Amino acid sequence: MITRHIPGKIHHRVVEHGDTVYIGGLVASDKSKDMKGQAEEIFGKLDELLAMAGTSKDKLLQVMIYSAAYDQKAGFNEAWTAWLDAENFPVRAYIGGAELSEGTLVEVTTIAAK
Amino acid sequence: MITRHIPGKIHHRVVEHGDTVYIGGLVASDKSKDMKGQAEEIFGKLDELLAMAGTSKDKLLQVMIYSAAYDQKAGFNEAWTAWLDAENFPVRAYIGGAELSEGTLVEVTTIAAK
Amino acid sequence: MITRHIPGKIHHRVVEHGDTVYIGGLVASDKSKDMKGQAEEIFGKLDELLAMAGTSKDKLLQVMIYSAAYDQKAGFNEAWTAWLDAENFPVRAYIGGAELSEGTLVEVTTIAAK
Repeated sequence: MITRHIPGKIHHRVVEHGDTVYIGGLVASDKSKDMKGQAEEIFGKLDELLAMAGTSKDKLLQVMIYSAAYDQKAGFNEAWTAWLDAENFPVRAYIGGAELSEGTLVEVTTIAAK
Repeated sequence: MITRHIPGKIHHRVVEHGDTVYIGGLVASDKSKDMKGQAEEIFGKLDELLAMAGTSKDKLLQVMIYSAAYDQKAGFNEAWTAWLDAENFPVRAYIGGAELSEGTLVEVTTIAAK
Repeated sequence: MITRHIPGKIHHRVVEHGDTVYIGGLVASDKSKDMKGQAEEIFGKLDELLAMAGTSKDKLLQVMIYSAAYDQKAGFNEAWTAWLDAENFPVRAYIGGAELSEGTLVEVTTIAAK
């Protein structure tokens, strides 16, 4: 059973398959923000998208972080640990060297459970 | 239940696990093609591999796109939207900055449902 | 049903969801090693983490390889083929151009079945 949410010109934002939820690459809209600010904006969007699929940040499984500013990992992690409860941390990887749209410091993809 | 397809020297091309299908990194064989052409070739291969697992492009869940030519995203998307029906778009991310084999402009990994 | 293993300051190392196991980015601790040596160390860690989730390398589904030394793919593959039985190869992609922590040549994320 597949359920798709928020159709766009090239993708859906969220696709549910059984009790697994896939969320596509999220970036901050406000490119003037620093890494911490961009991450906070992404996590705000992620909260909304998870809710749309009937789940929440407590059920994250895998988060992949593609960064265009590797050395700003500390700012990302600051927003990350403020957002998530430690007992429900997902697995993750923070991969630098990504080329993203202009001004975008980080892009995040997500797999969660329902 | 795991079913593996197309064994090679370092990987299988397709691995089914229950009703989830994982497809490894696909690149175009003809490196002389531009981004749109390479994407079209990849999508042709993907159609075949999905069929082998008893599924199709209508059941894509997550597509990850690793690009060595970030600025040619438009060419990729042109092939993408010609190939897929909008109502079945998966989630995706297009990550630039990838170093791939010589002449390869883009590599695509896929998770689909059966 | 979600089961998390090895809590850390920013992530869990392993998250089980039903019969699917997600393992976060693994890197070698000994940065003086070459690519083959770093890969061997990663695979040693992976064996332990898979065992913790009640599974093994025979049930790998998807392995993503993010490399900061694209041209050392042969060294990675040497360790890979020595470690895995060919009949159980997962799908994979080897993506170069990654910026990783200093001295880290490669980082690996994993999805496995139980």
